[in-house]
Amino acid sequence: MTYFEKAGERMYEFTGKIFPYTRSLTGQGVRDTLKDIEEYISVPFENEDGTTTDKGSMPKLKIADIPSGTTVFDWTVPKEWVIREAYIEDEEGNHIIDMKVNNLHVLGYSAPVDEWVDLEKLKQHVFVEEGQPEVIPYVTSYYKERFGFCMSRNQLDSLKPGRYHMYVDSEFIDGNLNYAEVIIPGESDREIMFTTYFCHPSMANNECSGLALQSELIRYVAAMPKRKYTYRFVFNPETIGAIAYLSNGNNLEYLQKNLEAGFVLSCVGDNNDYSIIESKYADTIADKALKCVLKYRGSYSTYNFHFRGSDERQYNSPGVDLPVVCYCRSKFGEFPEYHTSADNMSYVSAEGYQGSFEVMTELITAFEKNGYYRMKVLCEPQLGKRGLYSNISRKGTYDGIMLQRDVISYADGRNNLFDMSERFDVPVSEILQVTDKLIAADLMEVD
Amino acid sequence: MTYFEKAGERMYEFTGKIFPYTRSLTGQGVRDTLKDIEEYISVPFENEDGTTTDKGSMPKLKIADIPSGTTVFDWTVPKEWVIREAYIEDEEGNHIIDMKVNNLHVLGYSAPVDEWVDLEKLKQHVFVEEGQPEVIPYVTSYYKERFGFCMSRNQLDSLKPGRYHMYVDSEFIDGNLNYAEVIIPGESDREIMFTTYFCHPSMANNECSGLALQSELIRYVAAMPKRKYTYRFVFNPETIGAIAYLSNGNNLEYLQKNLEAGFVLSCVGDNNDYSIIESKYADTIADKALKCVLKYRGSYSTYNFHFRGSDERQYNSPGVDLPVVCYCRSKFGEFPEYHTSADNMSYVSAEGYQGSFEVMTELITAFEKNGYYRMKVLCEPQLGKRGLYSNISRKGTYDGIMLQRDVISYADGRNNLFDMSERFDVPVSEILQVTDKLIAADLMEVD
Amino acid sequence: MTYFEKAGERMYEFTGKIFPYTRSLTGQGVRDTLKDIEEYISVPFENEDGTTTDKGSMPKLKIADIPSGTTVFDWTVPKEWVIREAYIEDEEGNHIIDMKVNNLHVLGYSAPVDEWVDLEKLKQHVFVEEGQPEVIPYVTSYYKERFGFCMSRNQLDSLKPGRYHMYVDSEFIDGNLNYAEVIIPGESDREIMFTTYFCHPSMANNECSGLALQSELIRYVAAMPKRKYTYRFVFNPETIGAIAYLSNGNNLEYLQKNLEAGFVLSCVGDNNDYSIIESKYADTIADKALKCVLKYRGSYSTYNFHFRGSDERQYNSPGVDLPVVCYCRSKFGEFPEYHTSADNMSYVSAEGYQGSFEVMTELITAFEKNGYYRMKVLCEPQLGKRGLYSNISRKGTYDGIMLQRDVISYADGRNNLFDMSERFDVPVSEILQVTDKLIAADLMEVD
Repeated sequence: MTYFEKAGERMYEFTGKIFPYTRSLTGQGVRDTLKDIEEYISVPFENEDGTTTDKGSMPKLKIADIPSGTTVFDWTVPKEWVIREAYIEDEEGNHIIDMKVNNLHVLGYSAPVDEWVDLEKLKQHVFVEEGQPEVIPYVTSYYKERFGFCMSRNQLDSLKPGRYHMYVDSEFIDGNLNYAEVIIPGESDREIMFTTYFCHPSMANNECSGLALQSELIRYVAAMPKRKYTYRFVFNPETIGAIAYLSNGNNLEYLQKNLEAGFVLSCVGDNNDYSIIESKYADTIADKALKCVLKYRGSYSTYNFHFRGSDERQYNSPGVDLPVVCYCRSKFGEFPEYHTSADNMSYVSAEGYQGSFEVMTELITAFEKNGYYRMKVLCEPQLGKRGLYSNISRKGTYDGIMLQRDVISYADGRNNLFDMSERFDVPVSEILQVTDKLIAADLMEVD
Repeated sequence: MTYFEKAGERMYEFTGKIFPYTRSLTGQGVRDTLKDIEEYISVPFENEDGTTTDKGSMPKLKIADIPSGTTVFDWTVPKEWVIREAYIEDEEGNHIIDMKVNNLHVLGYSAPVDEWVDLEKLKQHVFVEEGQPEVIPYVTSYYKERFGFCMSRNQLDSLKPGRYHMYVDSEFIDGNLNYAEVIIPGESDREIMFTTYFCHPSMANNECSGLALQSELIRYVAAMPKRKYTYRFVFNPETIGAIAYLSNGNNLEYLQKNLEAGFVLSCVGDNNDYSIIESKYADTIADKALKCVLKYRGSYSTYNFHFRGSDERQYNSPGVDLPVVCYCRSKFGEFPEYHTSADNMSYVSAEGYQGSFEVMTELITAFEKNGYYRMKVLCEPQLGKRGLYSNISRKGTYDGIMLQRDVISYADGRNNLFDMSERFDVPVSEILQVTDKLIAADLMEVD
Repeated sequence: MTYFEKAGERMYEFTGKIFPYTRSLTGQGVRDTLKDIEEYISVPFENEDGTTTDKGSMPKLKIADIPSGTTVFDWTVPKEWVIREAYIEDEEGNHIIDMKVNNLHVLGYSAPVDEWVDLEKLKQHVFVEEGQPEVIPYVTSYYKERFGFCMSRNQLDSLKPGRYHMYVDSEFIDGNLNYAEVIIPGESDREIMFTTYFCHPSMANNECSGLALQSELIRYVAAMPKRKYTYRFVFNPETIGAIAYLSNGNNLEYLQKNLEAGFVLSCVGDNNDYSIIESKYADTIADKALKCVLKYRGSYSTYNFHFRGSDERQYNSPGVDLPVVCYCRSKFGEFPEYHTSADNMSYVSAEGYQGSFEVMTELITAFEKNGYYRMKVLCEPQLGKRGLYSNISRKGTYDGIMLQRDVISYADGRNNLFDMSERFDVPVSEILQVTDKLIAADLMEVD
């Protein structure tokens, strides 16, 4: 197994490491996560050509601090949430739930509380997931101050009448919202962007998986011997983080000028079918390219933009209008484990990760090779004299070279790699085999 | 019931009043009809805000006289037809048919005759409707001079051999072709046009219904507290009247410059499914808007331009090319009562009229509110702080506000109200609820 | 029967005459064929108007000589192949195959050989068609020197062990590649092009049929009393001949400037369903026009450009990009007789030819009449006064003139004959009846 054939295992392992942190829009959990990512992407490794990509040569994670209260477009960066302890205690002193056991037990951005109440009163502050009685739901209240807890419907039903101690030791302080980015330059200013989010506590697929995949992709891209495109990797809390990112400096204008295609990574570690959420008008090269890759990996689902939910929302918003789609395996909101305690380490797998990694690296390869193809000779070239065509002519002998003939015919400057893949109904990898040969024979150019 | 909820009843009653007149391309029946319309539109009524819209404030019907012999594009205005009496008398002096009983009994534009003939000869001048033996057909001969009568197949079959007196007292005189218009100005010179025709004698749906609906719409528009668009209402004899209208003065050039959308009203008083006849290329805002309204009123039929038949023919003709569609309930030519004595007061109803009135006023409301929507903030706005979004975030809570989110995303200056209705598959009224809120919150603008 | 109703019989007869020649990319067989074509097109005949189109007035075939070794775009013109004799002899002196019996027995462009070998060795130089044991396949080796023979699988299996004499008396000389053209001028420099090929030995449908049809079309076009378009007819060996043609002088630039539509004629003499192979993007007037004609001749097959195979390959290649489609009855490669000895005189017929001739002459008529139609009056014209409309108006009477009404409405300068045929779903001939009447009435113009 080559180094990157083991990417799935590494990502799965890394997921286990960052899974326990209590991430939210802001706070220490976020910073702990970013620190681990920084470490992960800088582990030295041996390239296929025998050279070693070491710490020194790896790109650094650039972390931004956006202070609480900062206006980011229509939004205001909230105070930082400090959460120290959260539990419900019964009369015998048992912690019937405790965020030390599962950090989903505390409402995200819960205000502090320290109060004994009876069962009826307690229930007003507990969220459960009706219909999934065994799971703890994930609930937040970022923009309205309230306190609260989450537990399973079964556990709530089992509570006996009596007195309960609601305890949350939290604080809202003037702090920072963080996002981080890695930019790996290529020959061109044109960019391919990947982006994922870190604002969910212990959930594996809908959070950690995007972080793991994106970190591994950074390693992969950094190790590429040369790059046509510049690669941008953005980590941010969902929604307000993407908004803060776009509103900062000239990020928006720069991306509007230079972004070729962008991909939001979300829920990428399970081993179910692949999914794409299209861009607003489903008409960008990001849509076309990802579909060309997914088409040859078994069945996949296409969701139109109505079904969006992650940061593709911001990237496609009016006035932003960037060519960004969202990539998932099981799409968020469509699997029952979503936003519950069941989205844990058993929902993701090394195999699931490896599949996503292959999709994304195949996509990168395709973009690196992509361009508008153009023949350098008029009429069909004489392929026989170059060994690219059978030298005997009889019924059937040209069957094996039909694709080559099709590629030549449509290499008229109007079709790129993805157009050809779509038109001829063959994987980009097969088109590339043909174009590589024709370019090597000096019969074709690409721009 | 508010005033306009009783529109259907008023229109039905008005239909009964104008039904008996012997209308044709020209003549006294036409002028009697226009006089009644003028009276109808100027009846005072109380507005919802308590003010009274009275006679003085109502727009006047402007009636044009186009003299016989006038060239209107490729046509010549015919002589005016004066019809005084028409019957067939048997040997006993019985009037076996008489236009006093039903004015369909005389061929439209019949020449005079006063002659006793035998039954065989009589039959050469009588039109019946084969296949509908009980109805009197409606037949005209505008541009070739002949005399004739219409009766039911059953009545013709029942005639005994004998002598019959064919009597038509008619005359062709140098007179006028009339049309009429009402223009109600709005803030803009851009116009919404409604047009209908008056050239058929006693038929209820295919004639009177358009006149009644258009008259009621004049009242409705005149009573609107303000208007973005200017509204034009045209009444004319079909075909040559529309041609005369377009050829007169600078009507054509003015409409080509200012017409936003036009609607021919034909057969609008029955209570069957709705219909639209598309414009020539089915690509105008009139097509899209009317379909967006009809879609949510139960099933409706779309006829392409091949099935045209009323004045949409002239408005879509080469060199005219105006954005005009035709609106019907049962489409002319598609119901058996069409162009026969069975198209009488029992074929139309107050309910049928009320449905058409609602379609048209919903259409007017949509146009008044329509525009290309554009967000005034970059990225998604923070809706929670404005009470436009749930302040708790958990699975499912955003379902009810998906439409708002979609409207925001597509408010990028490329989509108008009808585009959104079509794209999101929801009625314009629901889109308007969202856009009204967003405009009120100063988050959106429309132009 | 008129003269051109007998075209099918003449073409069938002519096919019999040129069938036996041993054609190849180059050589005497080609020149013999061209000589017969020249003679065929110059036979005098009587026109419908009684005049005679005689030899003197017929266009001449202009034959080009392209010397061996000439570079034509990416290709080099090969040496000329001189083939004098070819057979396999057994020990008893029997010629078990001989090209005198069937010229498919010798591999096209076979090198010379004169050698006694045993059966095993012989088999290495014999091509058969697996799966069709009774036919001799057609095989060539133009660009790699080898010798060889073709025979039926059954005959090869029947050979007894023993010694065999492989004998080919051939030679490669510095000679010429030939092509020929006829240009018949019209009022305009805009051109309609027909092209077919002559490089196959004795096969009837996939070779001779195109030559026969194109020769007859030359006679037809030459006899037309006047021509709007200039007509170009090209005869060449397939692939390299078309390349040589396009690379010669300013042929390519001239065609890019002046070609309205081009048609490759291939396999046009059988009596099966019709076929079209579309142009590269299926978007030229050649595609639309041929489909409009084929649609009304029973069922026909549409092959997209992936299924191309004849000189439409060169005409649609990048940088050439001419509006050229291919016309067939049974498409090459799709009938079992293709490229075998079974493609003989029994596979083609006078009826099959006559069908192709009618398709092509109907196409020519359509192009001659084609243009963008435009009404000369505003609104609908008054057809009644010109006898183009019933002068009595009642239900049903306008049914017969709906097409006329549709033609008028779409004569707005945006639709040509083929657009109308497609839109109204009626044959071009019916549209032409209407447009001829309207033009005669000075109501319409065409440009």
